[in-house]
Amino acid sequence: MRATTVRGAGDLRVDQVPDARVTEPTDAVVRVLMACVCGTDLWVYRGVAGFEPGQRIGHEFLGEVVQVGSQVSSVAVGDLVVAPFMWSDGNCEFCADGLQSMCTSGGMWGSKGSDGGQAEAVRVPVADGTLVRLPKDVDRALLPALLTLSDVLTTGHHAAVCAGVGPGSTVAVVGDGAVGLCGVLAARRLGAERIIVLGRHEQRTEIARRFGATDVVPERGQEAVHRVRELTGGHGARSVLECVGTEQAWLTAIGSARPGGAIGYVGAPHEVAGLPLGRLFVRNLTISGGMAPARAYIPQLLPDVLSGAIDPSPVFDLTVDLDHVAEGYRAMDDRSALKVLVTP
Amino acid sequence: MRATTVRGAGDLRVDQVPDARVTEPTDAVVRVLMACVCGTDLWVYRGVAGFEPGQRIGHEFLGEVVQVGSQVSSVAVGDLVVAPFMWSDGNCEFCADGLQSMCTSGGMWGSKGSDGGQAEAVRVPVADGTLVRLPKDVDRALLPALLTLSDVLTTGHHAAVCAGVGPGSTVAVVGDGAVGLCGVLAARRLGAERIIVLGRHEQRTEIARRFGATDVVPERGQEAVHRVRELTGGHGARSVLECVGTEQAWLTAIGSARPGGAIGYVGAPHEVAGLPLGRLFVRNLTISGGMAPARAYIPQLLPDVLSGAIDPSPVFDLTVDLDHVAEGYRAMDDRSALKVLVTP
Repeated sequence: MRATTVRGAGDLRVDQVPDARVTEPTDAVVRVLMACVCGTDLWVYRGVAGFEPGQRIGHEFLGEVVQVGSQVSSVAVGDLVVAPFMWSDGNCEFCADGLQSMCTSGGMWGSKGSDGGQAEAVRVPVADGTLVRLPKDVDRALLPALLTLSDVLTTGHHAAVCAGVGPGSTVAVVGDGAVGLCGVLAARRLGAERIIVLGRHEQRTEIARRFGATDVVPERGQEAVHRVRELTGGHGARSVLECVGTEQAWLTAIGSARPGGAIGYVGAPHEVAGLPLGRLFVRNLTISGGMAPARAYIPQLLPDVLSGAIDPSPVFDLTVDLDHVAEGYRAMDDRSALKVLVTP
Repeated sequence: MRATTVRGAGDLRVDQVPDARVTEPTDAVVRVLMACVCGTDLWVYRGVAGFEPGQRIGHEFLGEVVQVGSQVSSVAVGDLVVAPFMWSDGNCEFCADGLQSMCTSGGMWGSKGSDGGQAEAVRVPVADGTLVRLPKDVDRALLPALLTLSDVLTTGHHAAVCAGVGPGSTVAVVGDGAVGLCGVLAARRLGAERIIVLGRHEQRTEIARRFGATDVVPERGQEAVHRVRELTGGHGARSVLECVGTEQAWLTAIGSARPGGAIGYVGAPHEVAGLPLGRLFVRNLTISGGMAPARAYIPQLLPDVLSGAIDPSPVFDLTVDLDHVAEGYRAMDDRSALKVLVTP
C-alpha cells in the first residue's frame, strides 16, 4: 500500500510500504477514505519536531474497516469509522476517567513504529477502545465534517470545556487556525454569548464569524490585549482558548483573561520559554487543557455533526490526493491553505 | 501609636507613627489584639521584595473596632473582627463573584500608604466589605486559630479548593510551611482520604500528621516525585497543593500530579523562571489558584474554627510582643520558628 513517510525537513514522500494488517487479536485495519494535515504535522515537516527517517505521518482519518482481529467486537468489516488522533484501550484507569489521551497503552498515529493516517490504510491497535462507528447510511457529503472529530473539532472543544465555557459565556479565542476556528464553533455550541476571535487572516476570520464569532480582533500583542479588554468592560474574557502554543500567543491569552478566569490550552507548545507564573498568580488565573481526549468527545459531538447542527467542514479549503500530499503541506506551511483534506 | 516599619533589608523597627484614624466615611479603625508574620513578609525582610523605607508591614490581624466612619454599618465600636489580608469593597464585580482578592478598589495591608497589621491599630478602608465580625463572647483562647483566617488558613483552603479536593481525594501537599500545613487541614476538612505532605522538618511534619496527613515524604526533587507516584499507584495525586512558590517546588508539584489532575497554587511566586508548559501539556494538567479570596472563605470556615472542628493554631510556635517583632522575623528567617504570633 502507499503511505506518506517523512524523509527529512520539507521532504515527505508517498512510498510503497507493507500492507497494514492485523497483528494482534485486538487490532483492526481501516482503509482510509479521508485524512487531513494538522498544524502539528507542520512541525515535523519543518524539521522542528524530531522524527526518524521513514516514519509515517498523519493522525486524523476516517475510513472503512477491512479486517478485524479475533477479539474485536465493537466494529466489523464494512463499518465506517472515525479514529481519534490517539489510540486507547478503553480499559485503563485514564480511559475510565474519560481521559483517553493519557491511556497507559495509548499512542499517536505516526509515532515511531505505528501507521499514519495519510496513507491508504492504517493498522489500529486496541480497536474496540479506539474506533467510533458511524452510521452505515451516513451522507458522504458529511465525511469532511466527521473527519474533524479526529482532532481539530474535539481539540477546539477541549479548549472550550477546559476554559469553562457555558451558556452566556464571554470567550476570547487566541488563534485563527483550524483549531481556533473549531474552538469558536465549540464555544458557540456550548452557549457562549460573546466570542472574540483574535486573528487577521480575513478568510479565516470570515469562517470564524460563520462559526459564531461576534468580534474579530486583528491587533497583535499588547494591542490585542487592550482591544479584548476594551470589548469586555475593561477586564478581559472569563474564558480564553489558547489554540496556538507559542510564547506570544500565551502572553496574549494571559493578558486577555479576566482575573479569576480560565485559559483552556490546546496549542501544542513550541517556542515557549516558560509560562509567567507571576502574571497568572496576580490575576488568579486557571489554566487547563493539554491533549484532548478526542475519544471521549467524539460520541458527544457526533450527533450534532450528523444532524448538521454544527458544520466544521469549512476549515478544509484545499483537497489533495495522497500522491500530492506534499503540495498540501506546502500550502499549509505558507498559509495559503487553512487545512488540507487528503483523499487516498 | 506604635507600628512596625521596614527600614532596610533585615532592618525592621517599631516606630511611633500618627494614630490610625477614620479618614473616609467608609473607614473603621481596629485596635490590633493579635497579628502574625507571614512567609511573604520574609521576602520584604530579606530585601527580595521591593519596599519603600518606612513602609508598614503585616497583613494578618484581628482586633477590636474602636472607631467607625459615618457610612459603616456592618461593624460597630466594640466589635471583635478578623481582617482578610486584603481590603475589598464588597460591591465590585469581582467581589460579587466571590473573588475579593481582585477587588477593583482593594489593596493589601502594608502596601505603600496603608497601615500594616503588625502595629497597635489599623485604619481599615471599605470596612463593610472587609471586616468579618466575630461573636462577642468568643473564647479568647480561640483567637490564634481565628487569626489564621486572615491568610494562612484561607490560603491553604484556596489551594485545596483550586486543586479540586473533595470527599475521597488523594492529595499531595508541596511545602511544610504554615500554608502547606493549613492546606493539609483544609484538605482533610474537604474530605480528602489520602494526604501526602512533602517535607522533612520533623516538628512541621508532626503537625501535618495532627492536621490529617496520612503520609510524609521527606525526599526532595525527583526522589520526592518518585515516592509520591509510588504511594499513589504509579501516577501521582489527582490534587496537588503548591504552597511554596519556587521553581523546585513547582517541578515537584508537576511531577507529583496525576495526568489529568490539578495543581492548586498559592505559593507567592519567587525564583520561578517560567512554568514548563510542555510538561503541563503532556500530562493534561490544570493549574488554578493565585491570591486567595480570604474574605469569601472566612464566613465559610469560621463556624468550624469556632466549634473547634478544625484547629489551625498549632502553626504558631512562637509569640512575641510588638516591641520584639524583629526577633520573630529572625526566628522565621532561620526556620527556628514556623509562624510567629505578635501581640501588641
